[in-house]
Amino acid sequence: MNSLELLKLLESVQAGKLTPAKAIERLKHLPFEDLDFAKVDHHRTLRQGFAEVIFGKGKTPEQIAKIVRAMLAKKDSRHNILITRTDAKTFSAVKRVAGKESRLAKFHALSGVITIERSKEISGKGTILVVSAGTSDIPVAEEAVLTARMMGNSVEQLYDVGVAGIHRLLEHRSELTEARVIICVAGMEGALPSVVGGLVGIPVIAVPTSTGYGASFGGVAALLGMLNSCASNVTVVNIDNGFGAACVASCINRL
Amino acid sequence: MNSLELLKLLESVQAGKLTPAKAIERLKHLPFEDLDFAKVDHHRTLRQGFAEVIFGKGKTPEQIAKIVRAMLAKKDSRHNILITRTDAKTFSAVKRVAGKESRLAKFHALSGVITIERSKEISGKGTILVVSAGTSDIPVAEEAVLTARMMGNSVEQLYDVGVAGIHRLLEHRSELTEARVIICVAGMEGALPSVVGGLVGIPVIAVPTSTGYGASFGGVAALLGMLNSCASNVTVVNIDNGFGAACVASCINRL
Amino acid sequence: MNSLELLKLLESVQAGKLTPAKAIERLKHLPFEDLDFAKVDHHRTLRQGFAEVIFGKGKTPEQIAKIVRAMLAKKDSRHNILITRTDAKTFSAVKRVAGKESRLAKFHALSGVITIERSKEISGKGTILVVSAGTSDIPVAEEAVLTARMMGNSVEQLYDVGVAGIHRLLEHRSELTEARVIICVAGMEGALPSVVGGLVGIPVIAVPTSTGYGASFGGVAALLGMLNSCASNVTVVNIDNGFGAACVASCINRL
Amino acid sequence: MNSLELLKLLESVQAGKLTPAKAIERLKHLPFEDLDFAKVDHHRTLRQGFAEVIFGKGKTPEQIAKIVRAMLAKKDSRHNILITRTDAKTFSAVKRVAGKESRLAKFHALSGVITIERSKEISGKGTILVVSAGTSDIPVAEEAVLTARMMGNSVEQLYDVGVAGIHRLLEHRSELTEARVIICVAGMEGALPSVVGGLVGIPVIAVPTSTGYGASFGGVAALLGMLNSCASNVTVVNIDNGFGAACVASCINRL
Amino acid sequence: MNSLELLKLLESVQAGKLTPAKAIERLKHLPFEDLDFAKVDHHRTLRQGFAEVIFGKGKTPEQIAKIVRAMLAKKDSRHNILITRTDAKTFSAVKRVAGKESRLAKFHALSGVITIERSKEISGKGTILVVSAGTSDIPVAEEAVLTARMMGNSVEQLYDVGVAGIHRLLEHRSELTEARVIICVAGMEGALPSVVGGLVGIPVIAVPTSTGYGASFGGVAALLGMLNSCASNVTVVNIDNGFGAACVASCINRL
Amino acid sequence: MNSLELLKLLESVQAGKLTPAKAIERLKHLPFEDLDFAKVDHHRTLRQGFAEVIFGKGKTPEQIAKIVRAMLAKKDSRHNILITRTDAKTFSAVKRVAGKESRLAKFHALSGVITIERSKEISGKGTILVVSAGTSDIPVAEEAVLTARMMGNSVEQLYDVGVAGIHRLLEHRSELTEARVIICVAGMEGALPSVVGGLVGIPVIAVPTSTGYGASFGGVAALLGMLNSCASNVTVVNIDNGFGAACVASCINRL
Amino acid sequence: MNSLELLKLLESVQAGKLTPAKAIERLKHLPFEDLDFAKVDHHRTLRQGFAEVIFGKGKTPEQIAKIVRAMLAKKDSRHNILITRTDAKTFSAVKRVAGKESRLAKFHALSGVITIERSKEISGKGTILVVSAGTSDIPVAEEAVLTARMMGNSVEQLYDVGVAGIHRLLEHRSELTEARVIICVAGMEGALPSVVGGLVGIPVIAVPTSTGYGASFGGVAALLGMLNSCASNVTVVNIDNGFGAACVASCINRL
Amino acid sequence: MNSLELLKLLESVQAGKLTPAKAIERLKHLPFEDLDFAKVDHHRTLRQGFAEVIFGKGKTPEQIAKIVRAMLAKKDSRHNILITRTDAKTFSAVKRVAGKESRLAKFHALSGVITIERSKEISGKGTILVVSAGTSDIPVAEEAVLTARMMGNSVEQLYDVGVAGIHRLLEHRSELTEARVIICVAGMEGALPSVVGGLVGIPVIAVPTSTGYGASFGGVAALLGMLNSCASNVTVVNIDNGFGAACVASCINRL
Repeated sequence: MNSLELLKLLESVQAGKLTPAKAIERLKHLPFEDLDFAKVDHHRTLRQGFAEVIFGKGKTPEQIAKIVRAMLAKKDSRHNILITRTDAKTFSAVKRVAGKESRLAKFHALSGVITIERSKEISGKGTILVVSAGTSDIPVAEEAVLTARMMGNSVEQLYDVGVAGIHRLLEHRSELTEARVIICVAGMEGALPSVVGGLVGIPVIAVPTSTGYGASFGGVAALLGMLNSCASNVTVVNIDNGFGAACVASCINRL
Repeated sequence: MNSLELLKLLESVQAGKLTPAKAIERLKHLPFEDLDFAKVDHHRTLRQGFAEVIFGKGKTPEQIAKIVRAMLAKKDSRHNILITRTDAKTFSAVKRVAGKESRLAKFHALSGVITIERSKEISGKGTILVVSAGTSDIPVAEEAVLTARMMGNSVEQLYDVGVAGIHRLLEHRSELTEARVIICVAGMEGALPSVVGGLVGIPVIAVPTSTGYGASFGGVAALLGMLNSCASNVTVVNIDNGFGAACVASCINRL
Repeated sequence: MNSLELLKLLESVQAGKLTPAKAIERLKHLPFEDLDFAKVDHHRTLRQGFAEVIFGKGKTPEQIAKIVRAMLAKKDSRHNILITRTDAKTFSAVKRVAGKESRLAKFHALSGVITIERSKEISGKGTILVVSAGTSDIPVAEEAVLTARMMGNSVEQLYDVGVAGIHRLLEHRSELTEARVIICVAGMEGALPSVVGGLVGIPVIAVPTSTGYGASFGGVAALLGMLNSCASNVTVVNIDNGFGAACVASCINRL
Repeated sequence: MNSLELLKLLESVQAGKLTPAKAIERLKHLPFEDLDFAKVDHHRTLRQGFAEVIFGKGKTPEQIAKIVRAMLAKKDSRHNILITRTDAKTFSAVKRVAGKESRLAKFHALSGVITIERSKEISGKGTILVVSAGTSDIPVAEEAVLTARMMGNSVEQLYDVGVAGIHRLLEHRSELTEARVIICVAGMEGALPSVVGGLVGIPVIAVPTSTGYGASFGGVAALLGMLNSCASNVTVVNIDNGFGAACVASCINRL
Repeated sequence: MNSLELLKLLESVQAGKLTPAKAIERLKHLPFEDLDFAKVDHHRTLRQGFAEVIFGKGKTPEQIAKIVRAMLAKKDSRHNILITRTDAKTFSAVKRVAGKESRLAKFHALSGVITIERSKEISGKGTILVVSAGTSDIPVAEEAVLTARMMGNSVEQLYDVGVAGIHRLLEHRSELTEARVIICVAGMEGALPSVVGGLVGIPVIAVPTSTGYGASFGGVAALLGMLNSCASNVTVVNIDNGFGAACVASCINRL
Repeated sequence: MNSLELLKLLESVQAGKLTPAKAIERLKHLPFEDLDFAKVDHHRTLRQGFAEVIFGKGKTPEQIAKIVRAMLAKKDSRHNILITRTDAKTFSAVKRVAGKESRLAKFHALSGVITIERSKEISGKGTILVVSAGTSDIPVAEEAVLTARMMGNSVEQLYDVGVAGIHRLLEHRSELTEARVIICVAGMEGALPSVVGGLVGIPVIAVPTSTGYGASFGGVAALLGMLNSCASNVTVVNIDNGFGAACVASCINRL
Repeated sequence: MNSLELLKLLESVQAGKLTPAKAIERLKHLPFEDLDFAKVDHHRTLRQGFAEVIFGKGKTPEQIAKIVRAMLAKKDSRHNILITRTDAKTFSAVKRVAGKESRLAKFHALSGVITIERSKEISGKGTILVVSAGTSDIPVAEEAVLTARMMGNSVEQLYDVGVAGIHRLLEHRSELTEARVIICVAGMEGALPSVVGGLVGIPVIAVPTSTGYGASFGGVAALLGMLNSCASNVTVVNIDNGFGAACVASCINRL
Repeated sequence: MNSLELLKLLESVQAGKLTPAKAIERLKHLPFEDLDFAKVDHHRTLRQGFAEVIFGKGKTPEQIAKIVRAMLAKKDSRHNILITRTDAKTFSAVKRVAGKESRLAKFHALSGVITIERSKEISGKGTILVVSAGTSDIPVAEEAVLTARMMGNSVEQLYDVGVAGIHRLLEHRSELTEARVIICVAGMEGALPSVVGGLVGIPVIAVPTSTGYGASFGGVAALLGMLNSCASNVTVVNIDNGFGAACVASCINRL
């Protein structure tokens, strides 16, 4: 509609009803979003190839189901759909609204993630390797794995390679060096990214987890450890933010 | 220059060289700031009547003098000039560049503020009252007083009325109720804004100071006290931010 | 009764039974609130036009119902009644005691607020605009909206305009500039007030929310972000304190 | 028994079987508690007249009932019994074991305290006044009141006198000045002890409460406020520690 | 002057020029401090017998000397004068203005305290014992000792009795039990007050010091230790606040 | 399989098909874990004689039972099995899979530990003494006791010897001096290790517990107290980490 | 030497003096670093093309000069040399040892960086854009710019585009979208990366700076803001770590 | 003297002047330290073989020199003397008083330690290995090395083996496994003890250092990392406490 308004203005100029100088004045008072901004978002989607994402926490099963239905209703999109931090009850609600695509829907109980994988196209250039330290870091690691996969990446995983048993990590040196981006998930002292970062020359996205007790302070110890990493190819995302790490890794992997 | 570019585009439309539809296309690719955004800043200045402000911390005397010279060189502006968090050495440098306006320049040693008061016009509607608790809160209070004054407000001050001698504060009830906005500066336990807030029905801007020692943690105790104020007309700015409190108070006082 | 006591004392003076000097002595030992203080509170209510407010947290449905009944029993008051941080169960209890005014009672589930809107009179001079960043900030925003409305203000709202999609905010520039006071509700990094503050010349009350996870530390990240805002017209209230922000905004809007 | 052992040793000396020098040697190897230490505790009880106290948190009803039974079984003691941080279920268990003293047992639901008041003797010299700020501070205040009473003090209380309505506090100036020790309970910004401390010349024991939300951080804001009090007769105990405040006040009141 | 004003009002009543009812009206508009409040402060001084105190930190030698001169100029006062957190340079300035009383002035370098002891009268009822843990706690302990002495107390001291050499403390059990109030100064883990509190039945004022390094966090470790003391007769003042501890102890010692 | 690969390489050398120099080249590209690393872990187990340990938190009863069955299935091992941070439900599941060894399985409800003590062999050289302060520290102390015992140590325990009743600790001086390593468990102010450390000349492993409330901050106060211990033979493990303390103590006791 | 040892072993196999099986046994006891590890570091350098870097903080001018001389002495390397966190005095020392390359040495006073740019070869694939918020963030931004340049990247910079003047940032939308990686440097509330991240589809490395005062807590406010960014393509490095951000950006830019 | 007093008492018993029963009474009132406690300290020194230690921080050169002179004056002691956290000026003062032993005095500038090594006797049973991560950790490591040596231990050191270059550590596996106790010094993320702890079966004493910047928070990041170590043979001492780590290691090494 705003383009319409602009069109009229320009037609007035064309018709000589409005001088260019006056048109400039009036243009300045048009809300600028009418010109150009809707496009921004569109471009962004094109560029990132992001899956459609719903952050489930704090939303009811009904709310989520409704959003999913709307997403599936878009005719021209075959984007994968990813719902994070959700539960089995929501999965049932999603299945009910998913129609014939309900068979593509899967619930991953460990990480509380629902995926509707409508496209298996790989658009990332290399492999994203998700490395995690202890068994209790696996839910966050799985969130990262699923997110990266839904966003069109080839993903490998390497679990239970904590630094107190350094040889288990070293046994997998080849996987480390074959990856294009590494996501490194660790709780407790958060030392794994430093060791991994020292073994490779590629970017390492560190995810602290809230694993641990006492002075782990819900992941703060790991977070600080990672921010102070002595390896210079390590960056950090928020505690338990497997999703965010995968977004960044996916960004990098498309470059 | 961009307006020029736009003018040319519109003249092409006027001249029939460019259809309105194509003009829209090209308009979308113009950087939008060319249309409208410079105005934003301009409007803002008009609306706020803000003095010209230099945050002195981290700038050399020479850098500050240079900025002042540029400000004074603007022909059509008689804005007051305010330099916060600075020192006597900078004051000398400022005096040297200030030319005939150097006699208006003053250095306020307690708060480390330099003022060049070129206009005494009062644009705020009522009085801003700056209340402070202890003698060591005075530097921050003075920064607030000078800032509010430079921004065109009538300012009163009420010092040394800490809550442990509540009668000193109560003796000044009339000043409190006659103000339009109150800035309340306090360190240590930061209790003053709660008491003041309870005595009046106008907005109270609380400024925690880094006054105190030990568990005052450089003003954190006062900050938390103020954020948790049981008086519902209290808002808070950053520790020692007398300048910020005066900006907000000035905003309110123009409404 | 105390006025009575004072009256007697003065009558003794009048009757010559007590010298003025002795009367002074005795006056000094009267509790001073007998003279003047009850008035304070009264004045304050007049000046602020505050709705009657009950902070529901930690009170049983029965306790709240009892307070409401007492409020409604006051013959000469048509104040709106506002109950914050409460629930549906309390709403039933309130309905039961509200008599013929029960049809005015409403429960707002999202924010846990009960309103009994007995007067629609607008006493605030302009519009209070409540802006919020993400969907999970809405409960706090709604508490602010309802509080401001109950206190006699015209209120507008603008939701879901987070800084990572800056164009959505910019599309609403006109609403921003038309408001008289802005309440800005945001969790996570708490960046919205800085951007909003930079776009307008009016006071912005920032409310950090406990939205987020990990290193958001229950709203501390947003709180710190807001306290350190680079926009100088921003002040801050406590985490999740939508009510307090609306009180301050209402104070300002009456000036 | 140890005294016995010592007696034997001394009898050996008396009997000439052991030289004094050798006795010294052997004395040095006796565990010294045999000589003197049991007395310490005894003395302490005599001196303090402490009620018998059970910290209920983390103990089962059965464990508490068992301890109470043992206390009541002591023939020569008429000490009051105080159980803090407990619940109604424990109260039933205590009643069952209390025999004929069960009619003295009372459960105070607000503070979760059980009292068995076997003696009404007042051993404190003056009155302990418990002052509290908001309604949600009352549970902690009540714990203080009951503890002080069980320890043989005359106790008065003054509730709901927060600093944002300073006149309510000032109306009670006479109660404040008539007390011998004041316990001051407050959450949120913890400003009450500063104001109270400034009005009196007696010791003020400040108790921060975990009342509040957001940046009150479970009582930390109030705690810091109190530690930084600008009144010099204020000391502080742990958050929510009404019991501890009453112990100290009772200590002082016996001096 | 205000009493004068009041006197006139009452004389008008006496003279029949003003009815008692009208007098009440006019009384309500008198600033109430005119009636009664100056007395408050006066009473407080009488009751507390406090020495005159100057908090030296943040004041120049000249400012302090000026205040001292004013104090000495008061004809009818023989109060001791105490200046805390000051230095040798200030001491010289004070000596210069002290006239014939300059021989009473002493500088205590360890604690940075200046005393002008004009009266040796003891008004406290018992002995205040200042106990400290390590050699680096002595400055704070000395501040407490001097403050308590200037306020008219008999003071004893017991230094270097840290808990890691528990026998050194136990050797002085008699001093502990003979005191009326104990001030307990300790840095590092702040454990001393718990042990001392367990050995006596009198109030123990704990002063954390900023002694230590690393995870002592400038006294926070000691502060937390003391707040969590398992001895129930311990209260706490701010870090390094020897002055405050002595004020409270002095308050108690006058009871 | 890798050994196989290596064998082939060496056979090629032996057969003269590969020169030693070329073999070195190829060896460098073999993943080194193929050579040697599995052994590392094996050595470590031999050296430490550690029991088999399962950290129960976050694992389902079924998962734990499955791990236990696998452990019991190892023919040549008679290691004790220790499951920490678990519950009665898991104990039932473990019993079901334990077969004839189920009679050795015990559930320790206080600490939530399951033990299957298959060997009573003592391999530690001296006694590990576990000392604890309050009754609420006992669960953590018990975890330490059971862990140390399962790892083949002679263990003694000394409970309820908090520093506020120092004589109770001193009565047990002989137990303290007879131990080879001491584990010291304490919450609240965490002062016990300092006192114990001062009484002995052996290593003291301090375990802070999350016992307490308010400013104990879930064990942080105790943790800081212990880190700042003035006794120089004290080291610290994480909050509530009775298991870790026993591991270290066991390490030391084997030296 | 170890290769020698290995060679002998293999020669023994070749000579038939050692069976392959026995050789395996002996190989297992060789320290594995003899085989392969030196190579690791070498590979890493090759892969990363990192400049030679010296972290200057805590090193004397002499120490740094010595390291530089050693670097320059390596015949076959033309690596750039980068010294961070250093000063003018060190620069003189470096110049003295740099011989004919001293003319390539430059000191960047703002960021305290010394560069010796021996190669201008660009190995990064795209442009790294360094965006910063305020003038006081420039030192950190410059450290990032210089590091990225020394590591062979094409670098652009965009300064003074804080979020409170959002239009200044929006004016440079094209630079943002043309970059391959963005480094975003901001202090205070750290909001810039969220806004920038929302405008682009490429990775954004956020660097919090210690700019600000009061509740900025030396960069903690900015750090938390960035960790909680609502833009999903943002990762974070340590406070003031311009160097680290550039390392990661360089890593990414080589992919 | 007290023994004398006791002797007299016993002689009175022997002489029949005092009955054993009365003697017991009188014994109870003797300060118990007279019996036994001096011995405690003596025993402790014997048992620990500790060097004489002076904590230099906060002491003047003169004070330290005086203490050293007193130590050297003890005829029957050949203990080593260790002064930590001191400087070159103090060293001169110490040399002056050391007489003929001055040639044994050495100043270690890196760690600010003075040693007077009067005895080279080795009383520790094995080797203490001090491992450190970065070059800036060396001062703390050196303090540990010198302390351990002065206390009669054989000490080895292994510097610059940070976890980001894991192979440098692994190259020294044999040193690690040959030690009896390991002290592990690391700043930044504090990950080294976890890796080291996983490679050995002996106790690892972790020392966090205040190395680093930004979110290292003066060693807190490293401290938390170490407390949360996933290796179960790691304990922790205070930040920068190389001395304390060596004391504990020495304790263990004597077992």
